[in-house]
Amino acid sequence: MLKLNFKDTIYKYREIVESHLKDVYLSGPENMVETSNFVMSAKGKRIRPILTMLSCDALGGNVKQSIDVAIAIELLHNFTLVHDDIMDGDNLRHGQPTVHNKWDIGTAVLTGDSLLWLSLNILKNVKKDREKILLYFIDAIKLVCEGQAYDKMFESENRVSISEYEKMIRMKTGHMIGLCSHLGALCSGASYDVQNKMKNYGLEIGKAYQIQDDYLEIYSNENDMKKSLLSDIELNKKTYMICLAFDLDSDSLDQILSSKQDPVNKIKDLRAYFDKWNIREKTIEEINNSFSRANQILNGIDFKRNHLMDLNNYLINRRY
Amino acid sequence: MLKLNFKDTIYKYREIVESHLKDVYLSGPENMVETSNFVMSAKGKRIRPILTMLSCDALGGNVKQSIDVAIAIELLHNFTLVHDDIMDGDNLRHGQPTVHNKWDIGTAVLTGDSLLWLSLNILKNVKKDREKILLYFIDAIKLVCEGQAYDKMFESENRVSISEYEKMIRMKTGHMIGLCSHLGALCSGASYDVQNKMKNYGLEIGKAYQIQDDYLEIYSNENDMKKSLLSDIELNKKTYMICLAFDLDSDSLDQILSSKQDPVNKIKDLRAYFDKWNIREKTIEEINNSFSRANQILNGIDFKRNHLMDLNNYLINRRY
Repeated sequence: MLKLNFKDTIYKYREIVESHLKDVYLSGPENMVETSNFVMSAKGKRIRPILTMLSCDALGGNVKQSIDVAIAIELLHNFTLVHDDIMDGDNLRHGQPTVHNKWDIGTAVLTGDSLLWLSLNILKNVKKDREKILLYFIDAIKLVCEGQAYDKMFESENRVSISEYEKMIRMKTGHMIGLCSHLGALCSGASYDVQNKMKNYGLEIGKAYQIQDDYLEIYSNENDMKKSLLSDIELNKKTYMICLAFDLDSDSLDQILSSKQDPVNKIKDLRAYFDKWNIREKTIEEINNSFSRANQILNGIDFKRNHLMDLNNYLINRRY
Repeated sequence: MLKLNFKDTIYKYREIVESHLKDVYLSGPENMVETSNFVMSAKGKRIRPILTMLSCDALGGNVKQSIDVAIAIELLHNFTLVHDDIMDGDNLRHGQPTVHNKWDIGTAVLTGDSLLWLSLNILKNVKKDREKILLYFIDAIKLVCEGQAYDKMFESENRVSISEYEKMIRMKTGHMIGLCSHLGALCSGASYDVQNKMKNYGLEIGKAYQIQDDYLEIYSNENDMKKSLLSDIELNKKTYMICLAFDLDSDSLDQILSSKQDPVNKIKDLRAYFDKWNIREKTIEEINNSFSRANQILNGIDFKRNHLMDLNNYLINRRY
């Protein structure tokens, strides 16, 4: 068999994901079929299903055996996006209107619920370790909901420590990315020990991924992020940089955050403040540290094929 | 052991349910622990968990083995209530404010999601047939979401036939009540054949239950129903009586439904119209027919103890 390079591999995997997502929900109440497919067809990066499939492949598993789990994780992720967008009042996602914006809040609530059952429903097709995988999904739903609850709670808190922040993003983002590499390994038939290492690898890149999101929210431009850049600021979201800043010169930070100026100017002031305290550098350092730890974990696993290092490089350089 | 009569039995079961619900969510993000417990502690009838436990007991099972499933079904039901109340804009439920009313929509979305994972999480405790039960729950989530989608879709349709209506309520309400008697039987260790009969029994009382809800919405008073009596009318909901009426004299019905008068007078006009066409009697007849079929199914099952006939009588006479 021709061995594909990394770029061709993720291109191929992405095609597989897109084609499976098209078949997930073909018949049912027209309103839900329409909105669910609208969400599923959005131009997401598909990092989660690709990571699941790459993990299975890297350990010598048949990648086909990881596709159902990969799609189920992508749907679970889509469920969280639709409901989070309601909560955050975000009107754009992946360059298209969010469901509550294009339709209405009730439709968006039900669309999120539908994506959740579609996710669980896909798992019915799993042949091996189905019950175990279902139980892992239940834990993932719990953590993603509780992580979102902390995120929401932190909006109305004045101070959030770095350790509270790290706990929150581990629940909200890290765990589900850890689930991808973990279950990819499970589908490959890897040992418990290897599954565990793969999970920890996913947790590290999940952490890096979320801190990158926070970073890009401030330093990217709206066009790249394809979502409302200002929403984090307006909602008083606790990002990595904000939590770091609280420890350094919280008086100046409070002044910026509580000022009545418009969000665009607030972002400018925040950037200047972050520059002054080297917060930009410290954040990049933290992201790089997480990716380094992820690479170290990968170095301790005996892979058959390994595009995961390439994935790390791909993620480390992402601009949106 | 002292054999309890029906009234004492359901009193005892309700106490068990309430006491278990108190322990479901004791630690986690304070915002979600607070709102989830607010929902779980509302004074509901607890028909679903009681039916689950009665079904297990009636077939000679150890009722304790059905408690986790019973609680999980009640939580799944609570998930649907919180999200449906957002969709319907209902401000009262069980005599207390709904979550989106007392807090906000975002909190209500996340509270519904939390009740769903709490439901699935409880099922981890199930000792026997856990995987099978998990798969039945996935089907139940699917049907309850799709039923709600049809209900929502019908709001903007002019005509809905009785058969479309019956399909919708079977998905939205009937299936979950069928799940109670079905899984109660499964937990008792009953044969596949008996499980199937018990499921069909539950579907019949589920159908009766939903048509009763429609009926009481028009003929009860708001105090008894403890929810907003007018919401069905305002949302142009397709109830059993409305669907029946379309076949009889749709012109007069259209006139009433499209009139600009306030909902209170609309209900008066609807009552008069229903009286004229004997729709009230026909609806009561349909409810009674469903209960009769339920009783017939029960007559074909060999029970150890049987409070289910009493439950039917209890339900047939309910006023809210």
